[in-house]
Amino acid sequence: MSLDAVLARIDTDFDAATDRLFDLLRVPSISTDPAYKDDCRRAAEWLVADLESLGVRATLRDTPGHPMVVGHVDGPGPHLLFYGHYDVQPVDPLELWDRDPFDPALEETPAGKVIRARGASDDKGQLMTFVEACRAWVAEHGSLPCKITFFFEGEEESGSPSLIPFLKDNAEELSADIALICDTALFDSRVPGIVTMLRGLLGEEITITGPDKDLHSGFFGGAAMNPIRVLSGILANLHDDTGRITVPGFYDGVPELSPELRAQWEGLGFDAGAFLGAVGLATPAGEQDRSALEMVWSRPTAEINGIIGGYTGAGFKTVLPSKASAKISFRLVGDQDPHALRDSFRDWVRDQVPADCSVSFTGHGASPASTMATDHPAFEAARQALSEEWPEEAAYIGCGGSIPIAGYFKTLLDTDAMLIGFAKDDDQIHSPNEKYDLESFHRGIRSWARILDAVSRQG
Amino acid sequence: MSLDAVLARIDTDFDAATDRLFDLLRVPSISTDPAYKDDCRRAAEWLVADLESLGVRATLRDTPGHPMVVGHVDGPGPHLLFYGHYDVQPVDPLELWDRDPFDPALEETPAGKVIRARGASDDKGQLMTFVEACRAWVAEHGSLPCKITFFFEGEEESGSPSLIPFLKDNAEELSADIALICDTALFDSRVPGIVTMLRGLLGEEITITGPDKDLHSGFFGGAAMNPIRVLSGILANLHDDTGRITVPGFYDGVPELSPELRAQWEGLGFDAGAFLGAVGLATPAGEQDRSALEMVWSRPTAEINGIIGGYTGAGFKTVLPSKASAKISFRLVGDQDPHALRDSFRDWVRDQVPADCSVSFTGHGASPASTMATDHPAFEAARQALSEEWPEEAAYIGCGGSIPIAGYFKTLLDTDAMLIGFAKDDDQIHSPNEKYDLESFHRGIRSWARILDAVSRQG
Repeated sequence: MSLDAVLARIDTDFDAATDRLFDLLRVPSISTDPAYKDDCRRAAEWLVADLESLGVRATLRDTPGHPMVVGHVDGPGPHLLFYGHYDVQPVDPLELWDRDPFDPALEETPAGKVIRARGASDDKGQLMTFVEACRAWVAEHGSLPCKITFFFEGEEESGSPSLIPFLKDNAEELSADIALICDTALFDSRVPGIVTMLRGLLGEEITITGPDKDLHSGFFGGAAMNPIRVLSGILANLHDDTGRITVPGFYDGVPELSPELRAQWEGLGFDAGAFLGAVGLATPAGEQDRSALEMVWSRPTAEINGIIGGYTGAGFKTVLPSKASAKISFRLVGDQDPHALRDSFRDWVRDQVPADCSVSFTGHGASPASTMATDHPAFEAARQALSEEWPEEAAYIGCGGSIPIAGYFKTLLDTDAMLIGFAKDDDQIHSPNEKYDLESFHRGIRSWARILDAVSRQG
Repeated sequence: MSLDAVLARIDTDFDAATDRLFDLLRVPSISTDPAYKDDCRRAAEWLVADLESLGVRATLRDTPGHPMVVGHVDGPGPHLLFYGHYDVQPVDPLELWDRDPFDPALEETPAGKVIRARGASDDKGQLMTFVEACRAWVAEHGSLPCKITFFFEGEEESGSPSLIPFLKDNAEELSADIALICDTALFDSRVPGIVTMLRGLLGEEITITGPDKDLHSGFFGGAAMNPIRVLSGILANLHDDTGRITVPGFYDGVPELSPELRAQWEGLGFDAGAFLGAVGLATPAGEQDRSALEMVWSRPTAEINGIIGGYTGAGFKTVLPSKASAKISFRLVGDQDPHALRDSFRDWVRDQVPADCSVSFTGHGASPASTMATDHPAFEAARQALSEEWPEEAAYIGCGGSIPIAGYFKTLLDTDAMLIGFAKDDDQIHSPNEKYDLESFHRGIRSWARILDAVSRQG
């Protein structure tokens, strides 16, 4: 079967593909907000219908939350499991959007045309790159070159509460030779990447209680211990002067990069100044003996994601609060054990709480890091295929974010995953004015067509 | 004129006095909330009418904010200026109140009867102790034993924006031989006090900005400086291991207690364990070489009154925030210069902000401490009079709170102030279920009758 014909069809059909994506983007499938429950279902139904139009046996599968979409189609090549998610982040603050987030439009920008809408990049646009590649294959050849299972989730932006039970209940149906996950970014606009390292995530919320009620800081100030003071002291101790995290045992299981990967990363010419300069910063804030790329791809972190205590409204109130709390997340790498680290962190905090105060903890997720099985032959096939589509050679890259689905596919389906995506760092996912480059969408579709071709030839 | 007859009339008229206070408590005069603007005016009008019923020449005086009430009545003795405030704190959180905050009621408690309502203790009940004492004098003798100027403010709980201009514009009319301020507490239920030391207050809000937008902690965590980390580090440095405040020059102008006052305070038998135990604490948190009473009365403090940054809602969001801020107040004593300390504090903060981050400051008030002129003969006369009314001898006490009005009377009216009040530490002012002991109200009225008598005899 001819790849060139498929690529040509992708090009001639591209305006129609964009229109189809716009249809899906118009559905406000915000999974975290119950007000949009029906819209989430509507997005799932749209996908079922669209897959059926390709000859896929697609079904909407109810869960206690939002439905899953599963589709199967036979083919001669290896069995691929493709994953994407149809739900999107909330749009607040709406006033910071330049247009209705669910009225997608093509916009000209200095860097080229973009598709502007909530979900354009995360993840509807990415999901549709694969669907459109399949559509072109079917249109040109009447069938697909591989056996494919499509698996679309509607709860990715709200913690995926139904995911693990669904994978367990349907493990046999969903297991495949390799999984393809399209929810990541290019290395840059010229260099595509296959993510081979994902950081894990440990979330902890700590609340320090001092006095048993809010006090007047005039009457009690000086004598009563202030829980914000205690909390600040603990948080200030999280990092030492060299940027290392001080929780005992924190670096157990943190590997060094292999010489090969280190050489490849150095070859990428990552511009730390530009990376930080884009957000108004200049100095890498992590471990001082590590490069900025290591800090975000291969080194573990401790970040304070939120803090609150006392009076935080306009003006001033001289309260000495009863409680103060903070949300802290740790990004994990290599073999760091999230459960052991949770215990160690809690002990470390408790040791710093004065006798008068108490501390309570709430856990918010604990997933280990994932390292992909790059010795699977599909990896090199896909990397070659990507390299043919984009201006420069594709790279094995890291990803600072935590995408637990790859780990679940491995542990629950015994299926290795390849993470290939076409988003860009400036796509403003989770933020107002999200966009997806039209080039990402176009070359993304063409990339999957090439990957299907390359992987199918492995038999 | 007979004091005994006045005291007897106070006793027989006490139920009616309580009813009158209830009328005033029913007016929701929340000064900080514009929705209650008309109610504030209504409370002022109620007071004008009530003063007129005593033969006082009372007027409502408009300001850019809520009105002042000023009344004058002639008399033979020295000229007294009496101050109280008719506005009250907001009532949030309303669900923590056991009854409507503006539907006052007498309640039986294990410690005796209390008046339960917003403003019962702060400051309507206190204000009315003086008015009721005057009413009994007039009812019994047809006139008052001193020349009195009544001055009631309606903005005390919202920063008193109109106070200084009003005092400046009406300095001649308001100046007196001595001012009486009824907005403080008893030392305890047996020992009344005259406050002779008030701490000053310096309020500062600091905002640390790191990245120029909120970031995803997965993509930027480790490399981008987190402003909550910077802020925590600064706040953790406010106190050293011995509880001393580390801002350079902070202790300049902090006096030691005189041997006489130290002896008197030691004689009060202050129970630090009970004081802290009442709020669930056990260990004085301030300078380790100072007593708990010194910590709250005569030593300066630094308290973090509020902190906020990043995501603080339910659940978890892996944001690396752009900004984090904290509100900090310093209680000042002796000759500490609030303006010099503000400069020193800001320099101290700036020195700790990394080059990548920036800091901005918002000032929230800067008032020096007040030390009262206890050599004025009215002090000893009032102390003797109080000692006759209460079970134990009255004491010269400190007050950790900041009541800037005493300083303004001194600097703008050249009038020394005596702070005498009958509140109790457990009155829950500024909190749900505020109360005023019925005994505070009753003995408070009787105390003022005795003080009027004693001061008038000084001529």
